[in-house]
Amino acid sequence: MTISSRQNVWFKRIREAIHDHDDEIVIEGPKAVADAVAAGWVPIKTFGRGVDFTAGLFDALAETKSPQNVIGLFHRPQSSLDQIFARDSSVVVALDGVQDPGNVGTIVRLAAAFDANGIVLLPGCADPYSPKAIRSSAGAILSVPVVSASVEDLLMRGWPIVAADARGEAGDPPARRAVLAFGSEGSGLSPALADGARTIAIRMSPRIESLNVATSAAILLARSYELRA
Amino acid sequence: MTISSRQNVWFKRIREAIHDHDDEIVIEGPKAVADAVAAGWVPIKTFGRGVDFTAGLFDALAETKSPQNVIGLFHRPQSSLDQIFARDSSVVVALDGVQDPGNVGTIVRLAAAFDANGIVLLPGCADPYSPKAIRSSAGAILSVPVVSASVEDLLMRGWPIVAADARGEAGDPPARRAVLAFGSEGSGLSPALADGARTIAIRMSPRIESLNVATSAAILLARSYELRA
Repeated sequence: MTISSRQNVWFKRIREAIHDHDDEIVIEGPKAVADAVAAGWVPIKTFGRGVDFTAGLFDALAETKSPQNVIGLFHRPQSSLDQIFARDSSVVVALDGVQDPGNVGTIVRLAAAFDANGIVLLPGCADPYSPKAIRSSAGAILSVPVVSASVEDLLMRGWPIVAADARGEAGDPPARRAVLAFGSEGSGLSPALADGARTIAIRMSPRIESLNVATSAAILLARSYELRA
Repeated sequence: MTISSRQNVWFKRIREAIHDHDDEIVIEGPKAVADAVAAGWVPIKTFGRGVDFTAGLFDALAETKSPQNVIGLFHRPQSSLDQIFARDSSVVVALDGVQDPGNVGTIVRLAAAFDANGIVLLPGCADPYSPKAIRSSAGAILSVPVVSASVEDLLMRGWPIVAADARGEAGDPPARRAVLAFGSEGSGLSPALADGARTIAIRMSPRIESLNVATSAAILLARSYELRA
C-alpha cells in the first residue's frame, strides 16, 4: 500500500532519522543504498518514490531539490576507538573542528578510497550522519568506522600524530601506525592537539596560502596509500 | 552617497555581472577582493554593505545567504590558448564535461596551488565565472588563465594528453609539457578526447569505484608539482 499521510509511522520515523540521526539514518539514492547493501548493511526498510510513498510525500521527505527515487532507513553504525586502532598496517584520520558536513562526508569517502582504519572526530566537527555529510560520503559512511572522542582519548592511544599544516615542513605522510590529523581551514589545530603532533606541509606554490581541508586530506591519504602499497 | 534604489545603474550593472558574467564579474568577500587586488587586478569599483549600498539592497545583490560585506566588480579576464601553452615547464589542465561549478572553481584553485599553466574548458563544462565557481576558486579565478576550446583545438597543440581514468594503469602524472585531462564523474571522457589520450589511474582501494573529479585533480596536480620541484 502506498503511504500518503504525514501521520504514517514510517513517514514520521524517516523524518526523525533525517533530522536527528540519533539511532537511525537515511541513505538517499539507489546507488548509495545498493552500495550499502553490498557492503553488508541490512536496511531496516527501503522506500520507493511513487511505490511505498506517493511522489508528493516522498518529495516532502527528501532533503535535496532532486529527490533520488529510493531511500533506505538504516541503523546508525556504532564504532569504537578500539576498533579503529586495532590494525597497525594503516593510518587513522583525526578531524579537529571540521564544521562543514560536506567536508566531513568527503573525507569519509577518502578514508574508504585510501583504506584508512577509520576517523576520529575531535570536538567541533559536523555530525557525519547528517544528510549532507552522508551524501558527500557517497555511501562510504556505512563502511568507514567513525567515532567521536576527546583530544586526551586520542593522545592516550600512543600513536604518533602527524598534522597537516601549511607552516610545517614539506614531507611525505606516514604510511602506517600513525594518526593523520586535519584542523579547520580557518582556525587550524586546537592547541592541545598541536602540542602532541608533528606537522607536515603539502608542497605547493607560494601563490596560495592554504588548501581546503578535504583537498589536503585527499593528497595526503592518497600518498600514504601509495607508500603503503 | 549610499545607494538605496534598485533603479541605480551600479545596482543593475552588478546584478547583470552576477547573472550573466559576460564582460564583467563579481568577486564576493573582503579576503577574495583583497587577494584579487594583490594579484594585480584593478577593480572597476568595490562596494561595501551599509556604505555604498544600504544593507537591504546589498543583501538583495548577494547570491549567498551570508553576504560578505564587500563585493568587487572586475572585468572578466580574457586568456588565450597561446598563453596557456606558452610555458613548457609545467602542465595544462583540461576539463571535459565537468558540469558542476563548485568542481570547476575548486580545480581553478588547485591549478593556482600547484602552478599549472592554466585550464582548457572543453565542451559541457560549467562557466568558471559564475558566482558559485568564483567562490569555490577562493579568488584564484583571477590568477589562473581559463579558456574554452574544442577537443580539436586542444589536440592540435601537439602536447601529450594524460587523462585520469579509474580503469587506466596506476602511475605518476606528467610533470611538464603535458595536458592533464579530467572527465565528468558520471560519464568520463568524450570519445574524441579518449582517442588522443593515455590514461592513468590513481592507486586506491577496490572498495571505491571512483573519486570526485576535484579529488582526482587535487591528487594528480599535487603529485605533478612534487615531481617538478
